[in-house]
Formats: sequence, structure tokens, C-alpha cells
Amino acid sequence: MRIKQILCSLLAATAVATGFQSCGSSTASTDNRHRAQVIELSVPEREAGQTDVLGLTTEPMDTVRVAFVGLGMRGADAVRRFTYIPGVEIVALCDVYEDRVKASNAALQERGFPAAQEYFGDTAVWRKMVARPEVDLVYICTGWDWHTPIAVQAMKDGKHVAIEVPAAMTVDECWDLVNTAEKTRRHCMMLENCVYDNFEMATLNMAQKGLFGEVVHTEGAYLHDLRSMNFAEEGEPGHYADMWRLKQNTKRTGDIYPTHGLGPIAQILGIHRGDRMNTLVSMNTDQFGMTEYAKQKFGDTSVYAKTPYRMGDHTTTLIRTENGKTMMVQHDVTSPRPYSRIHQVSGTKGFAQKWPTTGIALEADNEAVQGADYQNLSGHSYVPRETFDRLMEDYRHPVIRQVGALAQEVGGHGGMDFVMDYRLIYCLRNGLPLDMDVYDAAEMSCLTGLSELSIENGSAPVAVPDFTRGAWNRTKGQHYAFTPADAEALGLTE
Amino acid sequence: MRIKQILCSLLAATAVATGFQSCGSSTASTDNRHRAQVIELSVPEREAGQTDVLGLTTEPMDTVRVAFVGLGMRGADAVRRFTYIPGVEIVALCDVYEDRVKASNAALQERGFPAAQEYFGDTAVWRKMVARPEVDLVYICTGWDWHTPIAVQAMKDGKHVAIEVPAAMTVDECWDLVNTAEKTRRHCMMLENCVYDNFEMATLNMAQKGLFGEVVHTEGAYLHDLRSMNFAEEGEPGHYADMWRLKQNTKRTGDIYPTHGLGPIAQILGIHRGDRMNTLVSMNTDQFGMTEYAKQKFGDTSVYAKTPYRMGDHTTTLIRTENGKTMMVQHDVTSPRPYSRIHQVSGTKGFAQKWPTTGIALEADNEAVQGADYQNLSGHSYVPRETFDRLMEDYRHPVIRQVGALAQEVGGHGGMDFVMDYRLIYCLRNGLPLDMDVYDAAEMSCLTGLSELSIENGSAPVAVPDFTRGAWNRTKGQHYAFTPADAEALGLTE
Repeated sequence: MRIKQILCSLLAATAVATGFQSCGSSTASTDNRHRAQVIELSVPEREAGQTDVLGLTTEPMDTVRVAFVGLGMRGADAVRRFTYIPGVEIVALCDVYEDRVKASNAALQERGFPAAQEYFGDTAVWRKMVARPEVDLVYICTGWDWHTPIAVQAMKDGKHVAIEVPAAMTVDECWDLVNTAEKTRRHCMMLENCVYDNFEMATLNMAQKGLFGEVVHTEGAYLHDLRSMNFAEEGEPGHYADMWRLKQNTKRTGDIYPTHGLGPIAQILGIHRGDRMNTLVSMNTDQFGMTEYAKQKFGDTSVYAKTPYRMGDHTTTLIRTENGKTMMVQHDVTSPRPYSRIHQVSGTKGFAQKWPTTGIALEADNEAVQGADYQNLSGHSYVPRETFDRLMEDYRHPVIRQVGALAQEVGGHGGMDFVMDYRLIYCLRNGLPLDMDVYDAAEMSCLTGLSELSIENGSAPVAVPDFTRGAWNRTKGQHYAFTPADAEALGLTE
Repeated sequence: MRIKQILCSLLAATAVATGFQSCGSSTASTDNRHRAQVIELSVPEREAGQTDVLGLTTEPMDTVRVAFVGLGMRGADAVRRFTYIPGVEIVALCDVYEDRVKASNAALQERGFPAAQEYFGDTAVWRKMVARPEVDLVYICTGWDWHTPIAVQAMKDGKHVAIEVPAAMTVDECWDLVNTAEKTRRHCMMLENCVYDNFEMATLNMAQKGLFGEVVHTEGAYLHDLRSMNFAEEGEPGHYADMWRLKQNTKRTGDIYPTHGLGPIAQILGIHRGDRMNTLVSMNTDQFGMTEYAKQKFGDTSVYAKTPYRMGDHTTTLIRTENGKTMMVQHDVTSPRPYSRIHQVSGTKGFAQKWPTTGIALEADNEAVQGADYQNLSGHSYVPRETFDRLMEDYRHPVIRQVGALAQEVGGHGGMDFVMDYRLIYCLRNGLPLDMDVYDAAEMSCLTGLSELSIENGSAPVAVPDFTRGAWNRTKGQHYAFTPADAEALGLTE
């Protein structure tokens, strides 16, 4: 990571009068942010001939031949889900552990699929699988540090890639993904499943139809007590292979798992689709909870109790966009508290939030819903249950209408995992742009490195790179592509 | 406001390995925050002989003679409430507007009190009232910009002062309050009523009894759509005199109303009672909602629609404490959304949040509640209703047990206003330290100026002054004082 510069310039004087002042007489600038000190990382130059992959489409393919690498919790369930998607061949399965590969292959055959080629034994074996010419798509569910290396190699080998979250763990890795995708013209989609959750998709639809007015502030989070899993040793239920996740919480700080909270609100704000993240500041707490838990489980003198974990229990990151909106993103996998991704959307005409309780508030004079006969609208309180249910029905996202019923049957985090997989294959088969591109992967993942950089510098502001290198304003708004026939069937052709 | 220095030093290198790393091998520093750039304001020197007023007590007084200045919404109701407090004489009433003074005086007499001396007519008349020798306490409910000037003069005139929130609008005003209180040895309490709300007090009690373990992260806010009041012109219902509040939102930016959210969580963290706020960063959105509202109400070409409001719709401030805790504080008085002060307390053993829905989660092995037979405790979900009700009963704060029932009768924001007034008079009459001192007033109010300073400098980190000038760690934890008899009656003497 090369630090380009710290923009150190004159401190803005604060000319705040303390007496009365007549309305509108303020002469202070309304935008003097650029006088600030911002840590800015250098942006690599594109190589000659290299261009962006915004809206990238590739040749339609009747059958998508998939290879999976990483068959732990996420990978094994992905293989299962893929047996429900039309037009898929599962050609290869890879994991360090033989038993995982065998188990997934057995599950495949139980579902009537032919056995896949097996790869296991060490952390280099994926390289052989990825090189196989009959693979179209590599689906990566390994521990985090392998995401980018495998994805980059797979794209170089001509494959499309789908990468579990976060796609990258450093800003340099983000650029590796972007540059490789641009050079190879391969799809690189991060498997950010939470954008496919029903409420998140409905609020995206509502936002795009104007129900919230101008969306001004948004919040997302990953607040999930993972201590019992992070501290599960080999053989204990729910353990991560080689305790990789605990190691991440040991060596890193900042928001190392930002994408679930960020994904849905980034789509609502249209990040790199008419707006972009400009700067962030991040602040964490000290570490308390991991040591306390380790002492309780393993004893005061255990290695775990004595480990100097870098990860603070709770991290909050604030992001300001080019269009003057803010995003608040939080991370806490250590504190006992009810699960929450928050998912808050606050605009000039309405408001929605998913956790801890789900509600929508719309102004009574909301033009976007005039004539719809919703009862008792008020910006001051959530709509009543009946109105909420009607709104959810009326603004159900086309993607959910397309595949939601099947997704409920197949399952996987309440169906959203299957919606994601289905959409990935659907777009590949039909030669459509994917729902999320490599810039989404980079933007959402770069928070890991940038929040860490801010925290290491006392919560100093850090510039968020423009991974599109200038094209963030070319397209407007998140778009989900459909074939003409499906668009017509879904009533999207007017 | 004098800017002392910007601590500009070497940028912390981010040594983040991308491969696997064995557990505990990280060599990165766990605390390298002090290498950062922080905007630091100069701290005025104490004058010779001037000492702090931590734990200040003054002579007990049988009757507290009160003068009120500012009889708008807050002041008029305060006068009413005071007629229910034993040991009070209301000796004078002051407002610019004669009708307000007359109305409050009539209300007094209806409640069987003698008429108070009246002061009205201009914005200087308070000066005469404050100088009157028979006044013990000046209770200030004016527009914000008058809070500190009146309070400082009143203390110089030998009076104790109670000041509506925020007590001060700039950091310099905060120092004026502190220095004047220290020199005059008078009480200066900010009327932060929300700390006296039942749930907030219960969570303070729970925190102090260890139910949340180590409290790590906290949140507070003032999220309240005030557009209809801010844009109400003279004569419209709910209007502010001379539209002073709209003017504040015109000339200022940042979190200009931070104390309701900050007060309860500051007490839980023991700010200047064993911990202190070290640095903050603040980020706001652009302004969208005020202009949109003004256009709708007054037309596109109205003065209100054309006013360049400095206040962004939504402001978030992050504060890091000396003990490594964080506080997130938000401000939004423009967006339509359900009212919220959030009030979140997240610790290593439990969690509580008041808005949008109230809940408490406690770990099953929570030592602080062992033997209490609470059912179904889990850090992953809120306790069931029955357990919640029992917790609220078992941890009802002594202050609420002292005066809560009467407060429910008298009313005022559900009773918390009366609890606050009662405690103020109770402590003065009994010569006890007040619940909140001038340092609380300064700490909570300084966010107005400091958040503005951070925002004007691109969300740069800003040091929070130590208004105790070194004494923040002398006392431990928020303390509510009682007479020995009352302490015994409340079972607090063990």
C-alpha cells in the first residue's frame, strides 16, 4: 500500500458568532471540506489498452461449469444450493481436507448429479483445479486470505470468479482484482448475499421509486457475537479451519467484515453508479471481550488469554459520498448482543430500518405513494402492520418475484443465498451484466484496509480510491438485468 | 477559540500481512493512536487560587428562592413543575414577552403561590432580575445563545444556576462556565433531563452493578423531526421566539444539540469520574431536507427556500475515551423518522437499547445476576418481557424510587423533567453535591463547537479538552447523593 500524500493545508477557521445573527446572514462557506487533511493512497495507472469493465457482458452459455474451492460452512452449502439451479454442471470440488470434498461429492450424487473431480490435500491444490479448461466459473469459499490470490489466478486462467466476502483484505488486493478483471475481461462478483434479502431489496426498490425522497443517511453493520465459533478449537462444533477467523481478529484491526452492512446501502446510494464514497473515518474500542472470553473458556494463563488481539471489540466507520450523503458502518463480533445489520435508510420523505425491529415511516404527503391509499402515513412513526405488509407486497423487488419462491424452498440464510447464486448463473447463461461487478467487490472490501489505516492514524480521514478510475458517474443507479422475455413477464418493460 | 496545535507526525505504517500468520505472532502495536494528527485547542490557565469544583457542596438552605428567565415552552412548564417541589419560593419571572410572564405568574397564583416579581420588555431585562439579592438560583430557559452569558453573570452575582441544554454553544463558552463556577464556587448544573428517564437510570444502575460487564461501546442521539416547529413563523403553533432555532440551524453545523444523547451514556461510562473523552471525529451530510421543506411550505422563491443553511441534515460524531471505549452520537432534526435517542449500552456481558424498541440482552453466565433466577438469558436475544419487567423493577434507580411516583403525577416528558427539578432543589436544600456539575455541562456542550471544527476540517480528529484540568480520574463513577436518612430509607447504607 503506497501512501500518495497527506493533504496538509490550512486549517479552516471556525467563524462562529456567539450572539444573535439574522437569518441567512451567515457568510461561512457551506463546503470547505477540501481544506482538510486526508490520507490518500496512490492509484495505479491502467496499462496500455486496459479499459474498465462497467456493464461487462460475456457470451451467453447454455451450461455453466462450476468449480468450488473451500468446502467449509459456506462452500458446502453453496454446492448443495447449486444443485437446484438450472443449467449448471459442478465439475470440480476442492478443499484442503479430503473429508469435506468427499462429503460434498456424496451430497451431489445424492441429488442425482454426476460425481465431480476431487482436489484436496494441501493449500496449493486449488491451482490445478483452476487451470482446468472445462471450468467456466470458480466459486471461492476459502478463508479470507485466499480469496484474492485464487480469484486473480482463476481470471488469468480465463475463468469467471465468484468470491465470498470480503473479496479482498487489503487495498492492494482490491486493485489486483480490478486490474485483473479489466485485463482479462472476466466477471468478478463478490458473493455479497445480504443485498438479496427480501427487505433490503424492497427498500432498494422503494428508494429507486422515490418513497424515501432524497436518501441522505444510511447505516449498515455486522453485529454478530461469534466468540463461540472464533474460539472453537479443531473438532469443536462450528470451528473455523485452523481457527483462521480468530487469527484475522488477532492480526487485524478495523472493520474486517464490512460488506454485509455496506452492500445494501451502497446499492441504495448508487455507489459508482452516480455517487461515490469519498472519505471515511473509523474509530474502534480497545479490545476487552476476546480476552475476557478466552480467560473464561481456557483459563487466565492460556495462550488465548495472553494473546494481544489487535481487533477492538467494536468499530464504527463513517463514510461521506461525493453527493453529500453519509454511511455509518459498524463491526462487532465479540460483544453479546442481538444480531443486527441495522440496514437503515433515512431520506427527506421517509425512513426504513431492519434491525432491531423492522419498520418503515413515510411522510403523509409522500408524492411517490399518492393514490395508493396507504393509511396513517407519518414521518414520526412507523406505518401500521397492515400498511407495512402492503408496502412489502407492492414494492417486492423483481428479483425476488423472479426467484424468491424457489429460494424459500432451497434455503440458505432465509433464501437470499440461493437468490444470489441463481442470479449469478442466470446472468452468465443469458450474457447479461452481473448484478455486482469487480468495482463493488473492491469498494466494499477496501473498508478493511482503509478503516485500519484510519484507526492506526487516530481516526484520521482517509480517501476512498475510485476503483473505476473516473467512470463512477457514467451509469445511474443499481440495475438488475433481465432477458427481454423475463422483463416482460415481470412487468418491467413499460 | 484558539487552536493550540495540530499534532502532525509520522504516519503509522500499516504492516498487514496478506498470507497466513500463526496465532499471536502479530508484532503490530496495539496502541499507536498518538502518532496521529489531532486538532487540539488551547486550555486556559487557572488563575491563582482558583481550584476545581468537583464534589462542590454549599450551605444547606431551607428554602430555595428561584428566578426564571425564558418562559417559552420549557420555561413555562418548569415554573409549573416547581410549584410541586417542597421548599421553593418562586421570586421572579423574566421573558422578553410580557404575555409569557403574565401567564406564568397567573399559573403560579392558581396553584396558591404568591405572585412573583415580573421582568419583561427587552433582551437586557434579565440583568436586573439576576442581580436581586434574594435570588438563590437562576433557572435559564432562554434561546441557546443566551444560556452562557446569563449563567456567567448570575454566578458572578452569587447565584447558583441551572441552564437548559446545551449550556454553551462554543468551547470558549464552556470554559467561561467552568472558570466562573470555579472562581465563584457556585453550582452550575445543565438541565439535561434525559439522564433522569426511567430506562436510562435503570441502565446506569445495571452498568454500575456489572450487568453489562465492561461497558465498551455506547450510543446516544437526538433524532427528532422538528421541521414543523423550526419553520413555524410568529403566531403559528409551536413556533420558537424569533425563529431562533431555525437561525441556529442556519448559521451552525455539526451536532448543535448533543446533550440528550450524550448525557446518559456519559454517566454510564463515568466521564470525568474515572474516564474522559479524548478525541472525536464528526461527519455530516449535506443539507437537503430544510430546503425541500421550505420550498414545499413557502414556495420555491421564498427566502426560506433560498437560505443557505449550513446545518447538514444528519450528523454523526464518534468519541473515543481514555479507557478505550467509544460513544456514537447523532443529530438529525430535519429528516422524517421516528423519534429516537438510541441510548445503547454494549458491554462484555450484556446489552441494552431504548430506541426504536426497548430491550435488554444478558449473557446466561452473567455473574452479576447469578442467583436471581432470571429466565432464558442469552447474549443473542433480548430477554423475554417478563424478565425485562423484573429487571426494570429490580434495578429501578434509587432516584426514581425516591421521586418517581410524584414525577409521574406532575409530568413533563413522562416525569423526567420533574425528577431533575426535584433533585436539583433536594441537593441544594440538603447541601449535597448536585447530580451534575459544571464539567458535565462543559463536556456535553462542547460537542457543538468540536463537532463543527471536525466537520470544517474534513472530519479530522479533534481533542476534547479536559475541563477538570487534570482531575478527571479523582472520583469514580456517577454518584447521586442522598441525605443519610434517605439513603437508609432507600436501602443504600450497606
